[in-house]
Amino acid sequence: MVSSSVVNTYPLSSYSFGTKEPKMEKDTSVADRLARMKLNYMKEGMRTSVEAILLVQEHNHPHILLLQIGNTFCKLPGGRLKPGENEVEGLKRKLSSKLAANSPNMQPNWQIGECVAVWWRPNFETIMYPYCPPHITKPKECKKLYVVHLSEREYFAVPKNLKLLAVPLFELYDNVQRYGPVISTIPQQLSRFQFNMISS
Amino acid sequence: MVSSSVVNTYPLSSYSFGTKEPKMEKDTSVADRLARMKLNYMKEGMRTSVEAILLVQEHNHPHILLLQIGNTFCKLPGGRLKPGENEVEGLKRKLSSKLAANSPNMQPNWQIGECVAVWWRPNFETIMYPYCPPHITKPKECKKLYVVHLSEREYFAVPKNLKLLAVPLFELYDNVQRYGPVISTIPQQLSRFQFNMISS
Repeated sequence: MVSSSVVNTYPLSSYSFGTKEPKMEKDTSVADRLARMKLNYMKEGMRTSVEAILLVQEHNHPHILLLQIGNTFCKLPGGRLKPGENEVEGLKRKLSSKLAANSPNMQPNWQIGECVAVWWRPNFETIMYPYCPPHITKPKECKKLYVVHLSEREYFAVPKNLKLLAVPLFELYDNVQRYGPVISTIPQQLSRFQFNMISS
Repeated sequence: MVSSSVVNTYPLSSYSFGTKEPKMEKDTSVADRLARMKLNYMKEGMRTSVEAILLVQEHNHPHILLLQIGNTFCKLPGGRLKPGENEVEGLKRKLSSKLAANSPNMQPNWQIGECVAVWWRPNFETIMYPYCPPHITKPKECKKLYVVHLSEREYFAVPKNLKLLAVPLFELYDNVQRYGPVISTIPQQLSRFQFNMISS
């Protein structure tokens, strides 16, 4: 793990991108998703998920890599940990599953940095909060966002059903309608970091 | 400075509160404030201000101490640094000026913790951003928010023209209308911290 409030960001053009087999969403509707969440909760208890903030730069402004599903919905790369799985190892596993080529010797060097936000799901509903609400003794999910430090050159393989977008902080900021409450406040979470913009 | 993502929070009832002479706002209108900012900028360059997030707990939920001016406007305790002043020392000076008794041996033990957010003012206007917008080479203000760790017992002296409020995170969250963009996203900034709620 990298514990530093300085983040080196390299131009988007220093990375290369290919495609790989589709990674379909496990659920086709929000209702299905919440029902599956409930089933898993009964088997395994609270769900813990980890997501990555991958940073690049364009025109000396930080951009975040988001996966777009269909034409509108965007999400951070990451996912659910296995019961008992270490957060850092689990996040690396999820990042490779979402963004790495299948060959084991072409894995990006995922350097997991600081946790910048923690969100709680009190009920089997879509709404989450950046704190565990009072009187909630059994939250259903805890989602943690980590900064991930990228090396200067990497190859990403993007599942064919997804698009990988580099979205500037100024586009995310104050844009809860488009990106939802978790992603739209990433600029605030990152504001304390110093970005070392490296041009190539 | 305290660098820890664990924050001990004590009940509001473990602190005592008195009053002291009023601390009037230097400006009576937003226009006056921006005009004074412009004058100071010409003399001293970019303004740096520091503000404190002072935490207490009630019913096992974190609350933040805010100063209320009049009936609606709330602000964090803090203020502008003198040119060249150290941020941590400057924040202690401002906290004592706003919240401590005048006697030098009754100063609270201000333990300045981590910087959790940085906001930028690109122009002589009220709007601020959690990043320096692209193409802005001369921002007019940089405002930094620090977590401040309080000891178990303290005496605060509140200026007579202000009210000190303990506001729960759930009241601040998603409440930009009432608290503005800086204060309403403090719950997100604090979400990565672990609160050690101590009852007395």
